[in-house]
Amino acid sequence: MKVFIVGTGLIGGSFALDLKAEVSNVEVYGIDESEQHLEEALKAGLIDHKAEFEDLAKADLVYLAIPVDASLQILPKVLDIVNDDCVVTDAGSTKEQLCLKVADHPRRRNYLAGHPIAGTEFSGPSAALHGLFKYKTNIICEIEKTAFKLQEKALEIFNAIGMRIRYMDPVSHDRHIAYVSHLSHISSFMLGKTVLEKEKNERDIFDLAGSGFASTVRLAKSSPEMWTPIFRQNKKNVMETLDEYISNLKHFRQLMEADNFEEVFQEMEKTNHIKDVLNGITQNENLKILENGK
Amino acid sequence: MKVFIVGTGLIGGSFALDLKAEVSNVEVYGIDESEQHLEEALKAGLIDHKAEFEDLAKADLVYLAIPVDASLQILPKVLDIVNDDCVVTDAGSTKEQLCLKVADHPRRRNYLAGHPIAGTEFSGPSAALHGLFKYKTNIICEIEKTAFKLQEKALEIFNAIGMRIRYMDPVSHDRHIAYVSHLSHISSFMLGKTVLEKEKNERDIFDLAGSGFASTVRLAKSSPEMWTPIFRQNKKNVMETLDEYISNLKHFRQLMEADNFEEVFQEMEKTNHIKDVLNGITQNENLKILENGK
Repeated sequence: MKVFIVGTGLIGGSFALDLKAEVSNVEVYGIDESEQHLEEALKAGLIDHKAEFEDLAKADLVYLAIPVDASLQILPKVLDIVNDDCVVTDAGSTKEQLCLKVADHPRRRNYLAGHPIAGTEFSGPSAALHGLFKYKTNIICEIEKTAFKLQEKALEIFNAIGMRIRYMDPVSHDRHIAYVSHLSHISSFMLGKTVLEKEKNERDIFDLAGSGFASTVRLAKSSPEMWTPIFRQNKKNVMETLDEYISNLKHFRQLMEADNFEEVFQEMEKTNHIKDVLNGITQNENLKILENGK
Repeated sequence: MKVFIVGTGLIGGSFALDLKAEVSNVEVYGIDESEQHLEEALKAGLIDHKAEFEDLAKADLVYLAIPVDASLQILPKVLDIVNDDCVVTDAGSTKEQLCLKVADHPRRRNYLAGHPIAGTEFSGPSAALHGLFKYKTNIICEIEKTAFKLQEKALEIFNAIGMRIRYMDPVSHDRHIAYVSHLSHISSFMLGKTVLEKEKNERDIFDLAGSGFASTVRLAKSSPEMWTPIFRQNKKNVMETLDEYISNLKHFRQLMEADNFEEVFQEMEKTNHIKDVLNGITQNENLKILENGK
């Protein structure tokens, strides 16, 4: 099987690694606008060959793992080139605009809209990890618009690398993911900014930071190249989550100002049951750690 | 050495475990207003004996690990009872009010004000961990007010369990720690609240959450009993950090609303260098993991 990875960074590179490990007879071709990334990906064994856009005609599977604004331009072009038996899927964190963009493309049935809930705060080929997708959710949108045989082919591969599948329409996807992913990134970036600004006047402030702080601002290391277009495409939903978040923070501040610490207590206690929610996520991580023998 | 742990939860219990492992001839006594916690601590081997307040007269070291409002009441009483050669130290996340409270106590020289930057989001004796303090910072306030011999005794113990020491005045401590610890807890709790509220109307929202979200809301599992008095005691500083955080979030929102995504990019890029800051913290964690062979 000839697999083409368009965008050989963290996500594309990890997908290639898993495919090579779990699926037999896979030959991986890399396409990237950065020649340096391509070289790195080749040296690290993520891809077997460097390739050009024209080569996509011989692809059996294309995996698009590039910033979501670039996908809007690139996906139609990829569909123009691929053959009838090739399935094209992607990893973008927004789905509504991309699905709209190709809605009337003559090769729409070759595309399967995907969003793997997997990643780290790092980027580039050197950040690629084997097993990144194991036990992670792949959200598939508009499955009904993909040709049966190509649905099957893609799902077999997702299954082989250990992903679980959830189906969703693109509009719901973008609204939900604004809450459980996009907002977290903004809260992290702004927390980091607040503390960095303070440090200009108060030296050594980070010398006092512990693992709690590190955990909360981890996402502030994420790539602005990747995240700016996500916020642009999902502007309406993200602004709604931001409004609710700011309103909750203001309310907490008002309770403190009024010395209403009984309510401050209640606010925290009511949120504590997030434990149960997070246990599910952490359990998946633990399963993976157990299995890797780490 | 007779060590008395007042408050046999996560912090007190972990301190007892480390002491037993790293210091010879340690006998640990537990005092807790919860009989159930005491029983748990005894069964788990965190403490060797249950004890009462009067028994503190025979203590060589007292470790106070209770909510910071309780410390204001309990520390003076502990100092009333202990003998001249006993050092009393604590783990509270606020230092200004506690240091003020005992400023004129006749046994002020027996007290060493401490704040270990160590912990997890869990609480109670069952959350106690061996090695919790290893490579972690213990912030010591007003060291000059503690008797020389007792400074020495306490520092030897902190050293034995692997802590590094930073000295600070209580006012600076409370201001700095508001940024790198207290604010993170509020940002996490309110992020958790925002998503939990949304989930009431939009089911299965958490089914899409990944490790990034889990990391950002981890601290929302923390104990309201512990955190409400911290926010009360550090109200002025915490409100200041909250104001700056909310202002940064609003600015980000305004940039999005104005479609100024170049500035959105800049905001994130400027904060990216938090990587370098966090590497220090993560490095300590990694050292620990390496050493434990995990």
